[in-house]
Amino acid sequence: MSAASRARKLNPRLEIVVLEKGQHVSYGTCGLPYYLSGQVADPEELVVYTAEFFREKRNIDVRLEHEAIEIEPGTKRVRALYRGAQPIVLEYDKLVLATGGAPELRILGTNLSNVFTCNDLAGAIRLRAFVEAERPKRAVIIGSGYIGLEVADALVSRGLQVTVLERSGTVLEAVEPEIGERVEAVLAQHGVRLIKHAAATTIAGDAQHRAVAVQYGASGTEPADLVLMATGIVPRTDLAAAAEIQIGPTGAIAVDERMLTSRSSIYAAGDCAEVRHLVTGKPAYVPLGTTANKQGRVAGENAAGGNARFEGVVGTLATQVFELAVARTGLSVATAKQHGFQPDAASLTSTSQAKYFHGKPILVKLIWDRTTGRLLGCQMAGEEGIAKRIDVAAIALHARMRVPDMLHLDLSYAPPFAPVWDPILIAANEANKKFRHS
Amino acid sequence: MSAASRARKLNPRLEIVVLEKGQHVSYGTCGLPYYLSGQVADPEELVVYTAEFFREKRNIDVRLEHEAIEIEPGTKRVRALYRGAQPIVLEYDKLVLATGGAPELRILGTNLSNVFTCNDLAGAIRLRAFVEAERPKRAVIIGSGYIGLEVADALVSRGLQVTVLERSGTVLEAVEPEIGERVEAVLAQHGVRLIKHAAATTIAGDAQHRAVAVQYGASGTEPADLVLMATGIVPRTDLAAAAEIQIGPTGAIAVDERMLTSRSSIYAAGDCAEVRHLVTGKPAYVPLGTTANKQGRVAGENAAGGNARFEGVVGTLATQVFELAVARTGLSVATAKQHGFQPDAASLTSTSQAKYFHGKPILVKLIWDRTTGRLLGCQMAGEEGIAKRIDVAAIALHARMRVPDMLHLDLSYAPPFAPVWDPILIAANEANKKFRHS
Repeated sequence: MSAASRARKLNPRLEIVVLEKGQHVSYGTCGLPYYLSGQVADPEELVVYTAEFFREKRNIDVRLEHEAIEIEPGTKRVRALYRGAQPIVLEYDKLVLATGGAPELRILGTNLSNVFTCNDLAGAIRLRAFVEAERPKRAVIIGSGYIGLEVADALVSRGLQVTVLERSGTVLEAVEPEIGERVEAVLAQHGVRLIKHAAATTIAGDAQHRAVAVQYGASGTEPADLVLMATGIVPRTDLAAAAEIQIGPTGAIAVDERMLTSRSSIYAAGDCAEVRHLVTGKPAYVPLGTTANKQGRVAGENAAGGNARFEGVVGTLATQVFELAVARTGLSVATAKQHGFQPDAASLTSTSQAKYFHGKPILVKLIWDRTTGRLLGCQMAGEEGIAKRIDVAAIALHARMRVPDMLHLDLSYAPPFAPVWDPILIAANEANKKFRHS
Repeated sequence: MSAASRARKLNPRLEIVVLEKGQHVSYGTCGLPYYLSGQVADPEELVVYTAEFFREKRNIDVRLEHEAIEIEPGTKRVRALYRGAQPIVLEYDKLVLATGGAPELRILGTNLSNVFTCNDLAGAIRLRAFVEAERPKRAVIIGSGYIGLEVADALVSRGLQVTVLERSGTVLEAVEPEIGERVEAVLAQHGVRLIKHAAATTIAGDAQHRAVAVQYGASGTEPADLVLMATGIVPRTDLAAAAEIQIGPTGAIAVDERMLTSRSSIYAAGDCAEVRHLVTGKPAYVPLGTTANKQGRVAGENAAGGNARFEGVVGTLATQVFELAVARTGLSVATAKQHGFQPDAASLTSTSQAKYFHGKPILVKLIWDRTTGRLLGCQMAGEEGIAKRIDVAAIALHARMRVPDMLHLDLSYAPPFAPVWDPILIAANEANKKFRHS
């Protein structure tokens, strides 16, 4: 819808058709956990604009329950099915693929009736209805990424006993160990049981087709009244691949800075597309709403004849797990190594306010390249002052700053907002000390 | 004390002497309004480290009640008076001037007994004692800079009727009109009477040497039980000037990036010294704790034989006025013009959180050069998410970003922290639209 709206803005005369497989357009996917908890009462609150709004106010022909099933780049046609039955053919001059991502469901039993995902509005509505109607007691969440943990938070607030199964040894993919420890501590404080190194293999069901337990590892079993699949998102690329549009090394659709795919006149944007990671310089798959919106806007502008560019991301992510906010940008130590950097890191705890305001602790970790001093990443955890503070590091990554460039950044200060040396500056000073001696 | 501590860190064997005219060292000046309000109960809470701490733990010879009265650069000597009477002579190899700033007191009657300043701990202690003992009803604050407004907030919380007299037509120097309006609105909501274009001329006293009213403009008079002078800070340069150390165009001591003055072996740092403004490239006088700390650290490192540099500031400032946080960085439209830029600006109101979280409004104004697109400044006001969000613009200024560089910054997002398009990005998009058409 970002692409459609942007195209409309640039050209009031374009004929713009949007094919949407489901019932909803333009809603805040990141708000779904808050709909589950009830903090957001109605699904309508998550909807930014309705299909009617787009039709009436923006003259965009949104067609719900229309699933695109084939692209013919040669004849510039798209075939779709209305309500799974009625075939439709549309011609296009420019096409934008915004097919999104799908939850990864690679274990047995995900089709049982009380197995859920929280990746789209329909899934969240189904899950909340189940929780409210059936009053389940025990939830098992498979995956401890930010969606898994945000839903854990929501289900605890609904009174469920929650167990999170994590395949690897750390929560929140690519999070540094110090940050992971803080997350694990807050989960434990709220009674969430986290089992690491626990790769789920099968969701076991009963005769009523209901999940009753999740099996993991060699012999683990965790009983469940509901199961949430939160093992990540994979790009929906079937349509593109069938049309011989190039799929990149990450498995998502390859695009250039203009969001153009390998086929002329076909753009891709959002969770189906790759993005350039500005720290590594390489394509990455980072399915986030912020990126999707930016890509959509650029694709829409270019589809309407403009010339917009989206340079890429630095990998910024923020999430709230109970009272703990966690944020990161750039690379972790491990991913930096994988990309050929020689990472070094410094971490410390400072506070969110002047000492005499008794601010909350802020854990900051800076990661840089020991040969060049270039900033590679930053991670933070704390109860306040986290999310927008990570943005300082994000911009520093955009500007390709080196640690020595960060010592004296003129960051805002007043006692209610920060200590006189902002935690980021303290971390930069620590980092610089290490860098000078390396 | 930053300089002394840094020098000690670099060289455990240096003999380090600090001459302090008053009774206190190393306290949070920016916390004084919160001591006035009582939010900070005791002066000790504002003290970061005591003189004893510096003497015992850092082997720094802090001498309280010692006023330096003359520098002899030729013989490398400093003359001081202990308790205003006992002369002392000290020799130095390196000297750091950290004489700070003094409140500007250019009207008649500032020596009356109930006229106060809030620029140092002694002044704040005197003011709070007066408020608690005498229970004054009506306060007149002369000056509506951030200190004036923070003290207004503190005195309102103590039950006083507060009038603020502002010489110019705007509160908070160099603040944009839209932001100023928000500040005026919050002052009015809390019953603070603001009189603009009201240059105070005389504080009128009674036979007991007590201020009873402030006269302003041609014929205005405002009754007062206490008067606060908050008309700004001027650098204390007497010592330096007498030693023929160069005073810069701003009236403060001229220093290079190493904090060296025009005299070899003499450094200056803090509110007595100039600083380079990285947006204009010119010297500026920006007396703030953040800058003073950075300059002190650099001066101390260099005085101890190191080679540190402080490039300068971008003019970041944040303050809290009742529930409203106000922040700015860079230049205002007016100051940009004065410095030869061709400023253009865009302002808009967004929110601090996702729509369905019902975040608080955030007013953002971006200022850029219409010929180059270079970002020149940013100002914000709102009840939450202000102070650390201004830092994004501050870093963008450090990195000399242009408006088109800011459209797709990878800023953090999650519903509790920001809308999916952060207010800064929305403002950058607005700015870019204007820039492309200019």
